Amino acid sequence: MRSISPTIETVETARRTQMIDVTDRVERAIEQSGVRDGFVIVFVEHTTAAVTIQENADPDVQHDLLMKLEMLVPQLETYYQHDEGNSEAHLKTATLGNSITAIIDNGRMILGRWQGIYFVEFDGPRERRMVIKIVGE
Amino acid sequence: MRSISPTIETVETARRTQMIDVTDRVERAIEQSGVRDGFVIVFVEHTTAAVTIQENADPDVQHDLLMKLEMLVPQLETYYQHDEGNSEAHLKTATLGNSITAIIDNGRMILGRWQGIYFVEFDGPRERRMVIKIVGE
Amino acid sequence: MRSISPTIETVETARRTQMIDVTDRVERAIEQSGVRDGFVIVFVEHTTAAVTIQENADPDVQHDLLMKLEMLVPQLETYYQHDEGNSEAHLKTATLGNSITAIIDNGRMILGRWQGIYFVEFDGPRERRMVIKIVGE
Repeated sequence: MRSISPTIETVETARRTQMIDVTDRVERAIEQSGVRDGFVIVFVEHTTAAVTIQENADPDVQHDLLMKLEMLVPQLETYYQHDEGNSEAHLKTATLGNSITAIIDNGRMILGRWQGIYFVEFDGPRERRMVIKIVGE
Repeated sequence: MRSISPTIETVETARRTQMIDVTDRVERAIEQSGVRDGFVIVFVEHTTAAVTIQENADPDVQHDLLMKLEMLVPQLETYYQHDEGNSEAHLKTATLGNSITAIIDNGRMILGRWQGIYFVEFDGPRERRMVIKIVGE
Repeated sequence: MRSISPTIETVETARRTQMIDVTDRVERAIEQSGVRDGFVIVFVEHTTAAVTIQENADPDVQHDLLMKLEMLVPQLETYYQHDEGNSEAHLKTATLGNSITAIIDNGRMILGRWQGIYFVEFDGPRERRMVIKIVGE
């Protein structure tokens, strides 16, 4: 097995909260690595942006997911002490997580028919960094 | 180190929301792989079903966990746009995550005394797929 | 690539809910392993304590995150059946997750400028166990 040098992807976000499909970027990195059998880690270097695997068919799923999260974890609470006003973005990020791991088999990621990899912005718009690490043979 | 070919497990769920202990299936896959030292990834191929590590002793923990999630993220909200009526299952899945990673040491998973691996259905009953990937030596 | 034997870290918590920065412990384990290129898994052996990557600058972020979680998932609900009175700690743990994976590059973890690794106690004070597994070359 080989541990391929990680690649850095820049993600430009356009709104405060937003899901961006990055599946093709991960697929391209796998293709370029030549790894046929192993796994890939996608890691977000931020504490107010996450990465998750979610439905890639109906964009309404993204709307509903972000909307419900916003209802549960609104931007302002009287008891928040952090003065940047983005405490809720930190909790949302912790909830979804800042990395995903996917399996590579026969040169392709194993993803369900409706699964895509999404970069999730919770405190944009910003320029963000995502690291792709591939391990395999 | 070797990257063992992934195995697919079918999980039959019986209710809309349900936690199913799949620890023994993962243990069996590790045993069959012959790997003594490494790690295992369990990956769920769906966007309305998750996998998590939780208490394996008192089933009331599962009841309380699913019930509280249901209270926080009920099935219907007036602002949901996704017309399949399962937006809440997507958010619950994103919250718990669709994969776990566990360490293999001396041929066995390192799990705490009260830890088990659970497949978590949020939009059943259905026939579901779970992928087990073992890497090690 | 080598699969390094896991090391166990003991974490002493002092309050019911608490975030403890364990980044330096993980860094030390990587240094001692001699691995320059690969990844590390940090795994918590409990079902009422988590591990997450969060902001390491302003401690108010930790306060706000734990406080909001407490508001969303209070300790007592009339419908809880588990008689240990810590059902909420189980759900909080499932939400944050019991493991993280980080990439090792040139002998160091790839972490964003504001990222630290935090052990998160939800049912303390207790003596807890955290496993560090390093894989690489």
